[in-house]
Formats: sequence, structure tokens, C-alpha cells
Amino acid sequence: MLENITSKQIKEMTLPQLTSLCEEVRQMIISTVYKNGGHLSSNLGAVELIVAMHYVFDFPEDKVIFDVGHQCYTHKLLSGRYDKFNTIRKKGGISGFPKREESEYDCYNTGHAGTSISAALGIAKARDINKQNFNVIAVIGDGSFNNGLVYEAFNSLRLLNTNILVILNDNGMSIAPTVGSIHEYLEVLSASYEHKVKKEKHANIFERFGFAYDGVYDGNDLAVMIKRLAAVKEKLKTQSVILHILSKKGKGYSFCEENPEATHGISIGSSDSVSKEYSEVLGEKLCQLAEKDSRIVAVTAAMTTSLGLGGFFEKYPERSIDVGICEEHATILCAAMATENLKPYYAVYSTFLQRSFDEIAIDICSQNLPVTLCIDRAGISGPDGETHQGVFDLSFLNPIPNLAIAVPKDLKEFEDMLEFSAGYEAPLAIRYPREGKRIFKQHSPIVRGKWEELTVGGGNAVIIACGEQPVTLALAAAEILDKERVAVRVINARFVKPLDTELLKELKEKNIITVEDNMLIGGFGSQINCFFAGDGKIIKNFAYKDCFIPHGGRCELMEDYGVSCKAITDYIKNAVR
Amino acid sequence: MLENITSKQIKEMTLPQLTSLCEEVRQMIISTVYKNGGHLSSNLGAVELIVAMHYVFDFPEDKVIFDVGHQCYTHKLLSGRYDKFNTIRKKGGISGFPKREESEYDCYNTGHAGTSISAALGIAKARDINKQNFNVIAVIGDGSFNNGLVYEAFNSLRLLNTNILVILNDNGMSIAPTVGSIHEYLEVLSASYEHKVKKEKHANIFERFGFAYDGVYDGNDLAVMIKRLAAVKEKLKTQSVILHILSKKGKGYSFCEENPEATHGISIGSSDSVSKEYSEVLGEKLCQLAEKDSRIVAVTAAMTTSLGLGGFFEKYPERSIDVGICEEHATILCAAMATENLKPYYAVYSTFLQRSFDEIAIDICSQNLPVTLCIDRAGISGPDGETHQGVFDLSFLNPIPNLAIAVPKDLKEFEDMLEFSAGYEAPLAIRYPREGKRIFKQHSPIVRGKWEELTVGGGNAVIIACGEQPVTLALAAAEILDKERVAVRVINARFVKPLDTELLKELKEKNIITVEDNMLIGGFGSQINCFFAGDGKIIKNFAYKDCFIPHGGRCELMEDYGVSCKAITDYIKNAVR
Repeated sequence: MLENITSKQIKEMTLPQLTSLCEEVRQMIISTVYKNGGHLSSNLGAVELIVAMHYVFDFPEDKVIFDVGHQCYTHKLLSGRYDKFNTIRKKGGISGFPKREESEYDCYNTGHAGTSISAALGIAKARDINKQNFNVIAVIGDGSFNNGLVYEAFNSLRLLNTNILVILNDNGMSIAPTVGSIHEYLEVLSASYEHKVKKEKHANIFERFGFAYDGVYDGNDLAVMIKRLAAVKEKLKTQSVILHILSKKGKGYSFCEENPEATHGISIGSSDSVSKEYSEVLGEKLCQLAEKDSRIVAVTAAMTTSLGLGGFFEKYPERSIDVGICEEHATILCAAMATENLKPYYAVYSTFLQRSFDEIAIDICSQNLPVTLCIDRAGISGPDGETHQGVFDLSFLNPIPNLAIAVPKDLKEFEDMLEFSAGYEAPLAIRYPREGKRIFKQHSPIVRGKWEELTVGGGNAVIIACGEQPVTLALAAAEILDKERVAVRVINARFVKPLDTELLKELKEKNIITVEDNMLIGGFGSQINCFFAGDGKIIKNFAYKDCFIPHGGRCELMEDYGVSCKAITDYIKNAVR
Repeated sequence: MLENITSKQIKEMTLPQLTSLCEEVRQMIISTVYKNGGHLSSNLGAVELIVAMHYVFDFPEDKVIFDVGHQCYTHKLLSGRYDKFNTIRKKGGISGFPKREESEYDCYNTGHAGTSISAALGIAKARDINKQNFNVIAVIGDGSFNNGLVYEAFNSLRLLNTNILVILNDNGMSIAPTVGSIHEYLEVLSASYEHKVKKEKHANIFERFGFAYDGVYDGNDLAVMIKRLAAVKEKLKTQSVILHILSKKGKGYSFCEENPEATHGISIGSSDSVSKEYSEVLGEKLCQLAEKDSRIVAVTAAMTTSLGLGGFFEKYPERSIDVGICEEHATILCAAMATENLKPYYAVYSTFLQRSFDEIAIDICSQNLPVTLCIDRAGISGPDGETHQGVFDLSFLNPIPNLAIAVPKDLKEFEDMLEFSAGYEAPLAIRYPREGKRIFKQHSPIVRGKWEELTVGGGNAVIIACGEQPVTLALAAAEILDKERVAVRVINARFVKPLDTELLKELKEKNIITVEDNMLIGGFGSQINCFFAGDGKIIKNFAYKDCFIPHGGRCELMEDYGVSCKAITDYIKNAVR
């Protein structure tokens, strides 16, 4: 019955019909995610909740904002996107996250944690100013609930004098299990539910901020969900409500229920053979370094395993810190620990590092502290789309003084850079993609601000590339051109900052081509342009053009947005001619 | 007795001696701030607290982190900086904020709100790992207490399993009066103090996070402060403590006590005659626009008056939002309101906008929403130093797709840009300095991505400048060179993004010089370099070099860090020759 289902039809269904609808949704999600990749457990856990929401509320007039947005699959299936669901996360298909451009049922795009309550407040406030009348709902997991934005939004609830519904979907997991005092507090609330203790007794924190607290309920019990939501909808007419539900991550699929962290997201292997993930190298190497250097500590924001730090956390629990989804706090902790002679490594996805721009600049770099940022999922990260591409990091890190930025060409070089970092006593960022697909033959020692010549000999065209994929493209182009008797030098720009100015000076007379996995604006190539601005040199940059990059395959997107072997080869053929 | 005072001497003083020490400190602060400018009321309110801290704790072995750091003057006077105190905020003198480079008594540099508890936790955790033994104290005002970082830090207190002291210095003010539910909660605590209600009853929130709560006490009563701090020092051996004190902002100086917002910071007029502050134009013009367009709302993060929005807030209370020091939340609120057909203006200092990088990119720009960022105190802001210079904004905004960036050459042009913004339905940033010092004669209509020719006619050298001071320098250089028969064109680059590519194409054969009030890396000039990278053009950029810019006068710093009339003139003389 899922095919062509409408909001009206859902409202007319009986409970047994709704229950089998849930089953159908669940099967659809499982089969699609195993084909396309995507978020699995979180979506399975939210099926009943979202079906109940569609039964009780009137979308799209009522508005729902999913925090982070990865748990919106059921909502997509119920809002006219069933027939496109098999295209999810594929280039040209629907997104794995809410997208206003895709449907009027998606009112606000999300991707990073903690924004939903702020967004709900903004929409509700606008509704009031516009003298309209609809409900605004934020659905937020307990993982996101750790983020400081939640507190900022709560703090202004009374101030804004508007009504919203916050559904706290508590499954005990961020990606890793949720940590911290807020979550402990939620557990106190849940325990009181289990033991039938009067619920209101514990609701103080939320009530302090102006919410009526309603909970704790079983979020996978459809009948209960419908009843609670209907009651809450009434209450919402006079005040803001927080509805606290417990749900089971991975619900209805025993493999997921038993492995909620591993099945949070399912990744589909790409056509290239993956040799290893960079995160594995980080984990192994950091353990080695920590053996020799007791000052080393590792910090993450709710991403221990996906960043490769599971082993480190096990081996060095006293030197391991996971602060939950609190990227800003994590950054300051690192800076502060560095003032006391520790050597912190903060591992984080490129896209989430965006949250810490201010703290990287002020706390780490203006104090010139030896913190190493290990930036994973840099460059185009692929199927998660606009909100998850790691294509801005070189641009926002470049202008920050005192920071050195290293970009390894392969897994081995990453290992060497980590070895280098152990002896480096100033701010250092190392950025790398998820997958390492090849190990190049050449590996010269890492020296700060020094690049590596990958092809020996002449050639008027010089490709300077940074990062594994760009270096790979550069070498492939050089090989093609070699066959056409165009000699091309390839240089591995291991450091985006500082630049290898000595080597650059030697290249004054050459045709320079830059290749990178970052936005053109503010990226690596633009630094080369600036270096040569006084010389009147012709330079060609291959980098991403000035637009947000949607979801799709990594390689196809790289090509579409400006970085490909063919484009490089064609340019050089014309330029050198 | 303040001169040459040592930590040891303070500890040996009697209460009457300490009381007169407070008086002496207070007089010194008042006389110095009226000479040098700086933070007044906040420092006067914290005198007894800091004297008591020096009496009870052992600095520099014990560590204190001042949140934001603007209230550290007493600490500086008591830690060997009396003789340099008259140089505070002057070029080459001591900083108005804590600086590790300045004294071992400053353990962590601050400048932006909410970082102190995270930093204290990091230092305490490092102490534990290093098996050391000292006390770590964060002193935080109720204004900063609104910031989400506080929640993130609180959330990880138990997790980190370490002990810190948080002194919540509650004076009811941010810069503007503190807003929000957290502050209302603090008022409940204070009221219970006034009425001698048992204090513990209300301490739940802090205890939930693992703090022992101790309060509320009169922070300006020296004897009470000493007694409480001594007790807290004992308690700190076994657990973290939050000490809640009430203090009077501006204490001991009736003018300040009565005008705490106006005397939060004292600004000393510069030698140029200031015609008007840009913030005044913002306030006036936004009121005008709001009259015609009921969709306009104004949002600030605890800076209503200093951003010029006092009048707007009075006239349109229902369309005015001050969320407290919550820059990220404010940014999302704007994005969300824009999805519901409102037209939000978010006014903020350039340096504090750094906190919202992620939300500007994802919430505003990836959704392409018509939010206008009014970025005040852009460029070198002067005496507040490293942590407050607004020199990064062009660099971190430039790579964000969909965002237009406008920079007015004077107050009149700013007004025109605001007029333009009213009809502009996409993300727009307008960045401007604090002071407008002159109105230029020419004012052509504002068109997106179009620049303005300020000198008519020939000349091989073309200066492209953006912003009031850069345009002023460019015109001054042109005038000087004109006398030496070197004709120079000056172009006002009103839009840093998009660039006026049509005009740039016409300049292909010219000597191009760029001038801006931003870092060279990623700034305006670097975009020009990229535009011409394929053409092999010689370009000279005047912008700030790659280092943090300390405190000093705006003009002297501009010159020192790379942007001056003389440098421009000298370059052109040589280049055109």
C-alpha cells in the first residue's frame, strides 16, 4: 500500500493497516539501503514515530525538521517520494537528507547536529509574525542533544514567546553510544519510566526552559505514539512541549538491533578496490606514537570508531576523550591540554570541523599550540551530499596564521606525516579522504613546507597536486601525455601551508597546473596564484567551482565539478602546444 | 601599596589593607581606562573577587581562566604588570585581555564568549594525566553563560572525571542586559538568596552535571569572598564546584553603576574626526526599510546597542530578537525565519561571526535564503587585539557559494547597500568598519557585482580597493602620484563577491593593485589573482600578512601589517616606471 500513498489515505487507515504500513516501510528501507548505502539503524528506529506523525499532523502545512536529517527516510516514503526512493543518494536521485528543493514536505535542510530546535523556533516565530497557524516539530536524537545549540535554543524559548514541539528520540546512541551528563539525565528519566515512578518529578530541567515535558514513551509502539502525539498536538496550542520517547535503533531487523553502531550508516563499496581506510592508519599509528610519547591524547566528538580510534580508546582509556557531538568544546579541550604540555590529536570529519573555525583560529592558532587536527572525509565525500562534502577545509584553514596544513598523497605518506607530527610543536592539520586506494612507489622524508618531485626530468608543464586523488589524476595525465611526447613534471604538494617557496621559485619559467580536492576559492591553487601574482605567470587551477556539490559518486562528482584527468590532459595539450 | 605588590604580600595583608588595595586598584582602573579606553564596568565589578582570589589561591601555580577575558585588569595589576598598566591596549603595551606571552599568571588566552569552562576542563584533565596538583578556576559572567559552549563543557564534566572551580560572576549584564531562560533561572537563585530561602533547593541544574553548587554570595563583599573561596578551595579537593556570586557591574563608580551598558567599554576618540558610526546608519536605515517591508526582522547576539539597533528594537519589538551570546543559534534563527518568507538582518561583529561559519554555509547559503549579514567592526578593529580583529571575514566568507559580499566605501554607500538589500532575495553579507570618517562625492547606484570607477580617465596603474579605509588610501595615493604626473585610476570594489568580471576584463592590459582591510590569504586581492591566473598578469596585493595582529591603533596597525598609502605610492612609482 506504500506505493502512491497520500497523507489523506494515512489518516484514514486503521491501526492494523498502519502497522503493516510500518512493516512495508521498514522492508523498503532495508532493501534500498543495502543497495544504495545510507543510514539504516536510525531510520529503522524511527518508522513508527514518523508514521504516527503523519497520521496525527497535517503535513506539509505542519512543519517537521529532522535533526541532522539522516532519519528522514520514512518521511520521504510517505510524502510522495516512493517511486524515486531507489535513487536515494545516487547522482541525480533524491537526497539522503531533507531537501527543500525536493519536496514541499521538507521545510528545512539539515545535515549537522543540533540545528533542529533553533530552526523550529525560527519557523514558529515567523509563523507568529505572519499571523499563521500551523504546528512546528523538531525531531532530535539523544546524540544531537549533547550539542551546545540545543542549550542556546532552549535558552531563548521563553524569549521568543512561541510554541514548538520537540520530539526527543532517545535511542542511547549518537553514532557511538551517547555520552555525557545530559544523556545520564535522560537515563534517569527513562529509568523512572521503567519503574512507573511519577514522571513529572524529574522533568525540572526542561520545564525550567519553558517546555511542558511529556514522557517517557515507547517510540516503537505505534498505538502509544499516535495517542501521545494527539494529546501533545492539543497541548501545543497553549505551550511548547518536549515529548521524550525511547526507541530502538535498528528496530525490526535483529542484525541492526544488535549492531547499532556498525549499522548506523551502510557504505557501498566503490568500483575501485579499496586498499584501506585512512582512519585505520590513524588508529594504528597513533597507538604506536602514544607508546613512545605519554603526552599524546586523542579527542573525538562522538565518532570514535569511524575515525579509527577504537583501538586507541581501548588501549589508552585515560588518554582518550569522546565528548559527544560537541565539536567546539572538543577543540578548546585540545588547546587547553596543549597549554599543559600534552600533545592532543583531534580527529574529526572535514565537514564537522566547520563548527570549530573560531576555536581553531583563536584557541589553537593564536596561542600557537601543538594540537594536531586529523581531518577525515576531506574532499568530495560523495553520497551524503551538500552538507557533508569536505571541500571547504583548505579554504577556511588557509587564512589562519601559525597553522601548517599537510595533505598526504597516500596511506603511507599519511603514516609518515603522523610520525612527523609527533615531533612538531605547533598547530598542524592533516587532511585526507576516507579511502586509500593505492600506495605510490616513492616516499621521501616529510619536511615542513617541502614538496616531493614525483617525476624526474624536464617538461615545460608542471602539475602540482595535493592529496591522493589529485596526485593520481596528475600522474595519469602525465602518463597519457608522455605517450604523446609531451613531458610533464608532477609535484606532490604535501604541504598546502607553508608552500614550498624555494621549489616554486625554480618553476618560474614553467607552465603551472594545480590540482586539488577542494573549492577553487581560497584553496591550494589560489595560494599558488597569489605566490606568482607579482610575476605575471600563467597558471591553471583544477579545483571545484563555486557552488554546493550535491550527492553522487565521488569520482563522478569530481569530474562534474571541475577536476578530472581528461580536463587536465586537454588543457596541457593546448597550453604546451 | 599596589606598586610592586607580590602574591606573597597580598597573602599577608589584613582585611583593612586588602580593602584599601581594592580601592587603589579601582582608582587605577578608572584613571587608566579613561586615558587608554577599554573595559570599565566589568572590571570595576570584579575587583573584590579577584583580590580575594589572589589572597586565597596560589597563582601562577593555580590557574585562572577569565571568560572573554575583558575583566582581567585587577588580575594584571596584582601579577606584576602595574608598571606597564598605563600601556594597556596601546601598540607595544600590554593587552586588554589575558595573554600567555605576557605573563605566567595568564595561562590561557581568551576573547570570545563561553570558552573558559572548556579550557579549565582541558587544563585540569592535563593536570590529572600529568599527575600534578593545582587548582583550576574559570571565571565566567552571566552573559557568557548563555553560550552553548557552557552546556557542552557541563555535559562532559563527569565524563572527564576531573575537578574545576567555576565562578559564575552574575551581574545581570552581557553588554546589554542578559536575556534568556538560563538567566531567569539565575535570578530565581538570586531571589532565594535575598529571601534567605534554603539555597540547595534550587541547585538542581548544576548538580545534575556533577557540580557542587555554592551560592549566592555578594561578590563585592571582600570578607565574604575570602571566606567562600577558602571553603570552596577545600571542597575542590574532592569535587567540582560552581560558586555563584552576585556583583555590581561598575561597582564603586556611581556613573558606571548607573550606566553599565554604556560604560561596559570605553572608546577613546582617534585623531581623525569621526563623522558617524556605521552602526548608526544601520539602525536608522533598517527602521526606514522596516516601515515599508513588514517582513524585516532584526536579530542580534547580546549587542543591540553597539550594533545600532536600539531604536529598531524599541520601534519594532515584535520583529526584534536578541538571543544573548548565541551566535550560532542566531544564525539558524535567521535562516529558518527566511524559509517562512521573512527578511532577517543579522547584525554582528566580524570577529564573532567566526562562530557561525558552519551555519552561514549550511543553513543560510546552501538553502540560498535571503538573510542579510550586517558585519560590523570589520577589518583591523584596533585596541582589543588578536582575538577581536575582523580581518578574516572576507577569507572565510569568500568560498561559500550563493553568498554575495558587499563592502561600502562610506556611510552613504552603506545606506545605499541596505536599500539594495531590501530587494535582494538571496544571502548577502555587508561588512564595514566601526567608524565612518568621510563621505565621498560620488555615489552611483548599487548593482550586484558591479564596481564603481572613482577617477575618470587613463593611467596604466589601476588601484582596486574595497572598504572605506582602502578606498581612502587609494585615492590619496592617486593624488600624490598625480602630482608626479603618474595617472592612476581608482576603482571602488563594492562587491567582493561576485567580482565585476566585465570591468576586470577591460583591465587586462593594466597594472593592477588591490587594497583591502583583510588578510591577504583568501581575501579580496587573492580573488583578483585567481581571476587573472590564466592571463599571466602582474598584480600587486596590499592586504594583511599571515600573522595574528596584536592590539594598537587602527591606522598604525594597518601600516605595520602591510596596508599604507606610502607602500602603495612607492610600489606604483616603481612599477609604472
